[in-house]
Amino acid sequence: MGARYERETTINWGQCDPAGIVYYPNYFDMFNTSAEALVCQALDVHPRDFARAYDFLGIPMREARNVYHRPSRNGDVIRIVSEIAAIGRTSLHIEHKLFKADGELAVEGFEVRVWTQETADGKLQSLEIPGDARARLMPA
Amino acid sequence: MGARYERETTINWGQCDPAGIVYYPNYFDMFNTSAEALVCQALDVHPRDFARAYDFLGIPMREARNVYHRPSRNGDVIRIVSEIAAIGRTSLHIEHKLFKADGELAVEGFEVRVWTQETADGKLQSLEIPGDARARLMPA
Amino acid sequence: MGARYERETTINWGQCDPAGIVYYPNYFDMFNTSAEALVCQALDVHPRDFARAYDFLGIPMREARNVYHRPSRNGDVIRIVSEIAAIGRTSLHIEHKLFKADGELAVEGFEVRVWTQETADGKLQSLEIPGDARARLMPA
Amino acid sequence: MGARYERETTINWGQCDPAGIVYYPNYFDMFNTSAEALVCQALDVHPRDFARAYDFLGIPMREARNVYHRPSRNGDVIRIVSEIAAIGRTSLHIEHKLFKADGELAVEGFEVRVWTQETADGKLQSLEIPGDARARLMPA
Repeated sequence: MGARYERETTINWGQCDPAGIVYYPNYFDMFNTSAEALVCQALDVHPRDFARAYDFLGIPMREARNVYHRPSRNGDVIRIVSEIAAIGRTSLHIEHKLFKADGELAVEGFEVRVWTQETADGKLQSLEIPGDARARLMPA
Repeated sequence: MGARYERETTINWGQCDPAGIVYYPNYFDMFNTSAEALVCQALDVHPRDFARAYDFLGIPMREARNVYHRPSRNGDVIRIVSEIAAIGRTSLHIEHKLFKADGELAVEGFEVRVWTQETADGKLQSLEIPGDARARLMPA
Repeated sequence: MGARYERETTINWGQCDPAGIVYYPNYFDMFNTSAEALVCQALDVHPRDFARAYDFLGIPMREARNVYHRPSRNGDVIRIVSEIAAIGRTSLHIEHKLFKADGELAVEGFEVRVWTQETADGKLQSLEIPGDARARLMPA
Repeated sequence: MGARYERETTINWGQCDPAGIVYYPNYFDMFNTSAEALVCQALDVHPRDFARAYDFLGIPMREARNVYHRPSRNGDVIRIVSEIAAIGRTSLHIEHKLFKADGELAVEGFEVRVWTQETADGKLQSLEIPGDARARLMPA
């Protein structure tokens, strides 16, 4: 099983749209915060030192998918559970589940991120995930 | 073939992150703007009158997926081509392609939206897409 | 002295820009979250019931000003202290101070909000702040 | 008179909040886009080359203030007129006016930005605005 991270947060006014519900792109933003916390906790590195620690650009998104089951609204307390679902040679597969206060599953997220360096001419290039990072993200 | 909408826009500073590239949730925001323009143009309704015109909540997202091929940066001029790919009894399948100025495909988006009403107790409920809307969104 | 609210939060990747520091409009978003929490706590009302409880639109911004002293970056833990500084017939004056983990003052915010109803034709109109709300927001 | 920039844009769904009007921090984002376009046009430099061209961090905000007169809603076409109002030794004073389609003034923005470099230890430091930039931003 992969590394796991759980956090609780509250929906804000600014995350909601004229229908009174969370504007759906904002769930990707919430999941990004969880993904970063998950990875930085597993690697025991401060978010600000992450790129420097591994001498790379970071782990930009290759593919992100959300499935929306129930809306959330301003002031709702929600819980996000995130987990490394799989790890490839250069990629991380992370799954997110967002639950409402009553335990109901509201949003599911699936993402593929790539361990990436930036070349001298500004192109992004995938890198093999280092062994120590791999062992921490997906313990045997 | 379904209704289609194309627009050109420029990436802003505020859409980019510390890696210097567009923060990936912001592509969903760009695609939402295109989806709304696509649907409102096909239905010949002003965005502000959309909910009223069909007496419903709107077309919230059921599932949204983006695949990222190339990053974009502040000041990049990009072109977004959006199209109704399929239409179900209550759902709209929309595809987006975001191209860089040199014509390179940078991001692909796939989304499923549901024709939705809000019940008296604040629940969201799918509705059959009215025939006239269906005919305009997916002409024979 | 007016009602007061204090909270601690952590800066996220998505709040930062290509200069690696918080994109300045995002501080207004943080202050809005604090202002809402401050007002709803003082009035003992859930954010979602606020408009209904007072039968009005809410307290939209009339004037917002931020002064930036120090930048913050991804992963920084910051503390926001917010306070009702003054109360007019229809307006609330709220001040925010954002401190870095070492106690240094990083951002100051000043805002004027107006107790507002929406007229039948969609115009916004100021309302006198009800006596009970006034007493809770600015206790003698 | 200082350099000037004018643009027209359309309010999006994602910029609006549950009250159905533009969420006020988003006006600062709109004004930032205009300020960048104003400065880059006056200096005849692409936004992406701005920091490199002057070998500095950029022009982060020292103080930003908006006064809100009328709300705007999804689909509204608005016009933003921006102008360098004054120029100090290290600072730029920019004013923005946002007009509705009927010509009504809806939002006024006032901002002070500082010509800034980042020191080796990550602190921000003001710099004297170079003479050629000054001449282009505030022609005699």
